[in-house]
Amino acid sequence: MTETPLEIGMLLYPAFTMLDLVGPLNVFAMHANVHLLSKTLEPVVSDTAGAAIVPTGTLVQCPHKLDVLFVPGGFGTGAAMRDPEILAFLKDAGSRAQYITSVCSGSLLLGAAGLMTGYKATTHWAAHDLLAGVGAVPVKARVVEDRNRFTGGGVTAGIDFGLTLLAKLRGAEAAQAVQLMLEYDPQPPFNAGSPDTAPAGIVQRVREMIQTAPGMSMALETR
Amino acid sequence: MTETPLEIGMLLYPAFTMLDLVGPLNVFAMHANVHLLSKTLEPVVSDTAGAAIVPTGTLVQCPHKLDVLFVPGGFGTGAAMRDPEILAFLKDAGSRAQYITSVCSGSLLLGAAGLMTGYKATTHWAAHDLLAGVGAVPVKARVVEDRNRFTGGGVTAGIDFGLTLLAKLRGAEAAQAVQLMLEYDPQPPFNAGSPDTAPAGIVQRVREMIQTAPGMSMALETR
Repeated sequence: MTETPLEIGMLLYPAFTMLDLVGPLNVFAMHANVHLLSKTLEPVVSDTAGAAIVPTGTLVQCPHKLDVLFVPGGFGTGAAMRDPEILAFLKDAGSRAQYITSVCSGSLLLGAAGLMTGYKATTHWAAHDLLAGVGAVPVKARVVEDRNRFTGGGVTAGIDFGLTLLAKLRGAEAAQAVQLMLEYDPQPPFNAGSPDTAPAGIVQRVREMIQTAPGMSMALETR
Repeated sequence: MTETPLEIGMLLYPAFTMLDLVGPLNVFAMHANVHLLSKTLEPVVSDTAGAAIVPTGTLVQCPHKLDVLFVPGGFGTGAAMRDPEILAFLKDAGSRAQYITSVCSGSLLLGAAGLMTGYKATTHWAAHDLLAGVGAVPVKARVVEDRNRFTGGGVTAGIDFGLTLLAKLRGAEAAQAVQLMLEYDPQPPFNAGSPDTAPAGIVQRVREMIQTAPGMSMALETR
């Protein structure tokens, strides 16, 4: 890689979803200085089996101008949407970032910071009804691009989101090389990854599981 | 979930690949007690933009009998294959685990511990030639099952691997629910995820990048 590394700031907050973060992280890793930013330098516990990741800097240590500001989703999104320090950080970093981006319920958090007003966006399928409440224009798609906003759908959409944005920033060949490096030739053993294809009983079960989770109910109250 | 949680031990070692670990981690998260095991309790730095994850226990704190022993790959695999403490741990935990599993170059590490002798296995496409050298029977497939060994291909194959193994352990409906929860309805923006479909120039570039990486050359020397 001969180009200047991208400066990417990725927000960490309690009960984010590990794969929301790590899909894009691994896509960008070879092309970026990645800043994993949290309120403190203490490890941040995800919503994923209690796994914790170590921040590389605090919110105030964020580089002045990011190429990409990225927000993952997770069951902690609702609580983060009520955290003034996180919202102030997003407003400030977002005012200068070249691209403002998210995966999963991260777009709701961007919206709570006022960064999605009038922008087309997507989120996890089970949270799609909440997008309009934070000012976004809901679009059902795996990756949604509107001016300098890029949003991805639920969790694993972060890989497709990352490759799409990397192609924009570094060209199709760079993105293809990363796709091959990550052997991203998906072969899901079932056809249940979307509410349009999963059995109805499974859709209902997962919808209830998500909507009764503490983080999501807080997001609902925030509308 | 009313069933007893699975006991899953996931090995951490320096310069593992984050997405190798986190794909399966997120698949198993709601069905398992996940033990992230390392030689010490210090955060383990991955090969992925320097991101570090916090172990939940040391190797000696591993539960006596795991349902699943899991090893991720990464540029640090070669060094781990020469680490007597890691090899001894794998031999010991592997002697009791119900399933012995890996993603990416993790199968080479299992092989170095003597756990793949005579078993069909896969690994990252660019490391496939190394499988026979550690006693495995190489199979080119995204997920390979042979008796109680489950191995996945490179990096993102961990999601397909995880869903396949979860279906085995907890049934197809549980795996489908997780697939829907993770919105795993992949839509790669390019068709470059396999050496069979990527442009030849990209394949060559990635092969050189991987084969000249320090970890991989150590794996080569280990043959």
